[in-house]
Amino acid sequence: MADHFVTKLTLAYDGGEFAGWARQPGLRTVQEELERALATILREPVSTSVAGRTDAGVHALGQVASYTHEALDPRRLNGLLPDDVLVLSSEPVPADFDARHSAKSRTYCYRILNSPVRSPFEQGRAFHVPSELDREALDACAAALAGMHNFTAFTPTETHHTRFERNVTVAEWRNDVFWIEADSFMRQMVRVLVGTMLEVAAASRSFEQFAALLEGAPRSAAGRTAPAHGLYLASVTYAEGPSPASART
Amino acid sequence: MADHFVTKLTLAYDGGEFAGWARQPGLRTVQEELERALATILREPVSTSVAGRTDAGVHALGQVASYTHEALDPRRLNGLLPDDVLVLSSEPVPADFDARHSAKSRTYCYRILNSPVRSPFEQGRAFHVPSELDREALDACAAALAGMHNFTAFTPTETHHTRFERNVTVAEWRNDVFWIEADSFMRQMVRVLVGTMLEVAAASRSFEQFAALLEGAPRSAAGRTAPAHGLYLASVTYAEGPSPASART
Repeated sequence: MADHFVTKLTLAYDGGEFAGWARQPGLRTVQEELERALATILREPVSTSVAGRTDAGVHALGQVASYTHEALDPRRLNGLLPDDVLVLSSEPVPADFDARHSAKSRTYCYRILNSPVRSPFEQGRAFHVPSELDREALDACAAALAGMHNFTAFTPTETHHTRFERNVTVAEWRNDVFWIEADSFMRQMVRVLVGTMLEVAAASRSFEQFAALLEGAPRSAAGRTAPAHGLYLASVTYAEGPSPASART
Repeated sequence: MADHFVTKLTLAYDGGEFAGWARQPGLRTVQEELERALATILREPVSTSVAGRTDAGVHALGQVASYTHEALDPRRLNGLLPDDVLVLSSEPVPADFDARHSAKSRTYCYRILNSPVRSPFEQGRAFHVPSELDREALDACAAALAGMHNFTAFTPTETHHTRFERNVTVAEWRNDVFWIEADSFMRQMVRVLVGTMLEVAAASRSFEQFAALLEGAPRSAAGRTAPAHGLYLASVTYAEGPSPASART
């Protein structure tokens, strides 16, 4: 039976020409391109689960998707995929593996280009921030993010989320790249975090105001949403050995 | 009088969405975008001279153009230019300066991505070469290029060029990037050089065959033209102090 086989795919994509991961009628999405390539080889419809439902314009360096069918040679898939999506690996996993539900954590990075002038080669790849930034303020904001917080202020008010606490395990600026790992993320969470941190770094908001947002303030209290094109889903981690679901059965 | 002022512009652009530097009716070109921005500020038509007439898809890190009018703040120009072109600097120069005729040398680089898999983030930025390459063969070919040679084999047969000798002052591979400096270049010269060197590195052509091409062989004796999107006009050098033209007058 086909459902004895589950496959884990790791993918990279340039999100610039995609309306995001998730299928939407009439729009070009990564999910649709991937499922079309899978269906072409497997000769039947295939549906995928994904670790991070990236929005329009968001990139991925190590997105993870899974589907219930045999693993294929990545070269066959890549031969059918457009140039802006690449399957990095394809591996058989236990039958209870699900790219979304089995994930233990996701890591995103957000790239800024902090320079007086923009770069023709960074358009769509990094958020151009021409003003001077207080790097110590950025570091202080990042440090304040570690741990369990209520991120209501960092996702749109109209939301499908029901739980607003997230556990941040890594949050740091390394030069012009902000890295953040958490158990999971709410919609636009990294982009609003970056947009708000940049306001602190430009001295238009205090560090204390930023820190106070982390305990359940409303969206209106946080800053602007940084643009999608600076954001990259970097990697997803899973439990070693049997997944939690299999441990339960 | 306006012709007392000559301005030297240094520019970077991503050539991916351009039909090259030179104006062509109905096509999007860098020259047209730049001259339109200049004319908007100066309120009169402006025509530019350029150091390297890059072809469609070719990028520039340090292209040089000149025009006969006052120098403008690069920020004003950049405000009018599209995101894929950037003026890096704008400076007044002696009245006999001409970006094309005063240039002493041009430096190009050509980027390959030598990896079994392509990269979504290198599309349009580097030529994907999945096969293994003999790096020593590449180095030997590059070394053979130094000096004065007849490059007839490395430009299309149908040509406007009348002189086929060029003096190569630098030619070397640094990891996955080929760097070449010469007094001037013929159309497609770097791309045919790279395409032919890659054939030597893939052992489908001998080093001796390559070296023999440098003394005036026909185009048909050389290899394929590597794609435009790996090529970057890196920089242009000019004489220090008065230009040769001014020395003559």
